[in-house]
Amino acid sequence: MSDPQTVPVPGRIMAAEMAEQPAVLQRILDEGAPQIREVAAQIAARNPRFVLLTARGTSDNAALYAKYLTEILLGKPAGLTSMSTTTAYGAKPDLTDVLAVTVSQSGGSPDLVASTKAAREAGAITLAVTNNAASPLAEVSEFHIDVLAGPEKALPATKTYTAELLALYLLVEGLAEAWGYPRPKAGGSPAVRELPGLAAGVLARKAEVKALAERYRFAQRLVITSRGYGYPTAREAALKLMETTYIPATPFSGADLLHGPLAMVDNVSPVIAIVPDGKGGEALQPVLDRLRGRGADLMVVGRQEQVEAASAGFALPAGVPEEVQPILEILPLQMLAYEVTIARGQDPDAPRALAKVTETR
Amino acid sequence: MSDPQTVPVPGRIMAAEMAEQPAVLQRILDEGAPQIREVAAQIAARNPRFVLLTARGTSDNAALYAKYLTEILLGKPAGLTSMSTTTAYGAKPDLTDVLAVTVSQSGGSPDLVASTKAAREAGAITLAVTNNAASPLAEVSEFHIDVLAGPEKALPATKTYTAELLALYLLVEGLAEAWGYPRPKAGGSPAVRELPGLAAGVLARKAEVKALAERYRFAQRLVITSRGYGYPTAREAALKLMETTYIPATPFSGADLLHGPLAMVDNVSPVIAIVPDGKGGEALQPVLDRLRGRGADLMVVGRQEQVEAASAGFALPAGVPEEVQPILEILPLQMLAYEVTIARGQDPDAPRALAKVTETR
Repeated sequence: MSDPQTVPVPGRIMAAEMAEQPAVLQRILDEGAPQIREVAAQIAARNPRFVLLTARGTSDNAALYAKYLTEILLGKPAGLTSMSTTTAYGAKPDLTDVLAVTVSQSGGSPDLVASTKAAREAGAITLAVTNNAASPLAEVSEFHIDVLAGPEKALPATKTYTAELLALYLLVEGLAEAWGYPRPKAGGSPAVRELPGLAAGVLARKAEVKALAERYRFAQRLVITSRGYGYPTAREAALKLMETTYIPATPFSGADLLHGPLAMVDNVSPVIAIVPDGKGGEALQPVLDRLRGRGADLMVVGRQEQVEAASAGFALPAGVPEEVQPILEILPLQMLAYEVTIARGQDPDAPRALAKVTETR
Repeated sequence: MSDPQTVPVPGRIMAAEMAEQPAVLQRILDEGAPQIREVAAQIAARNPRFVLLTARGTSDNAALYAKYLTEILLGKPAGLTSMSTTTAYGAKPDLTDVLAVTVSQSGGSPDLVASTKAAREAGAITLAVTNNAASPLAEVSEFHIDVLAGPEKALPATKTYTAELLALYLLVEGLAEAWGYPRPKAGGSPAVRELPGLAAGVLARKAEVKALAERYRFAQRLVITSRGYGYPTAREAALKLMETTYIPATPFSGADLLHGPLAMVDNVSPVIAIVPDGKGGEALQPVLDRLRGRGADLMVVGRQEQVEAASAGFALPAGVPEEVQPILEILPLQMLAYEVTIARGQDPDAPRALAKVTETR
């Protein structure tokens, strides 16, 4: 008989890291926030006019969230960079007045380091947001924010994603404060301080997610949609599902779904909609109506009433300001990716063909 | 017996519009170029420092191509806007020194009109690139470029896509010229003037594409990848395949494919790679090696040698500068979407559930 201690349980690492998320969020609020506020104040004093965000994979979805925050709460135009313009084509843009934010769990990918170095030489204010203060990326950047998530060992990133979201939210809140902008609804209110407890409540609802996983165990494909602040969640949920379950999951903003891909949706192609409680959710309503009109099987992550109007779903706690809802929205979708993968007899900790630190150049 | 004239032949309209592409490209070079050069000179005199691009669907892929051109050939930071920040959340960014380019076939979608109006009020130089000079979008924009493609009636956009690409290329070439930047390799050289003839040559190779279509007739999913200038082609090919064949086709930049989605690729998930002849193609090589190492079925659109090293493919004419290759690359992929759709007994002209002008708000 083998020692049960030495038999690897599939998904053990991913499950443990998902469960750490409330503690990580609490650590950022307790230990990370003062440093983030200080970095925000120093950056605010330099008055950047534009924000460029650079990242890959899961961190790219966190960067997209920061793009929405920047445009909506700071009124600064923002863009996600196409890294190959610098690393492959040697583009030398003039980045005076630009804040260049690079988001990376490991801080180790050579292309991120090279493009951040190039941005700094081109005049940008550079900020690295990573889970590794000793990383080459932190080294080459003028400013650094540590997301304090602790070592992440499962290949699918979970706790570093929510940690990046909260750190980026606090950065934007700090910039808004330094510039004297109206305080975001979530800011300073009990809302942000309640996130760790609310996250723990969501993560405890394993049985509900297991039941949802039954629905998708044999799915051949998935369409995932949202709008506004929920769109980065749709993208991250698709990535998580693809890298663990291997089911092709295609994310679309609700508006883009109507421009073509809607044709792909029928009654055997399930749709998962993340419906933000706020303006993003309102803007998504016509898309949900069109999907229901086409007889689509619709699972909703959102408010209780939205879940009740769908084929299935997962209700999120009410009363959370829209701009920080993404920190909770992704949790049931991480759990869904995990449960569907287990149900399909695969190991969420180690998807085939992947390495934890992907060194793209 | 019914009159054969009145029996609609599936795909007749899309086939006719694809076939018009050489003539449309020629019309832009002959009739459109002087106006585009004039618009470029006027915009250059206003010295924008940043470029924001707004579009949806197929036009969004043309906008992404313009983002690469802007960063590489003009050295200006560029971003694709998340429209909902303006239309749903009422963001009011300061757009002084920003060139806001909106790309739209119809020029009619209310959200594009609203966000362009808002950009103009926020201080941006606004430019609409449309196929309809009398459209509301052209009306609210300070500058307008007509892509001169003639009425497009099939639901899948084809000739307006390549027309948008060429018009945007000429715009960037005009800006580079006005600012005294080094002339792009394609510029003024015979290369651009040869595009209509080269496009006609590609479009004539129907038998080759029909043979490729046999491979994908029963495919359950597709992964499409590229890097650099070829990445917008990967996105547009995926959209074209999804909206006509209904096969879920997921586009990834080569670098992002290695960050997670590679796990999804196995020997039953075909991959289509667009391999630019130039730096984008070089940067894609490690990804192609990883895919071959995983036993992926790989179809290549690119140079003859690249096609020969793959499972299947379509060779593009040699000697075309990389920055204008996208105008040719998409042609065999439009044809592939068409032929697979016909093989599956569907009508490419009228995908289910879609309307030609999508009015998102």
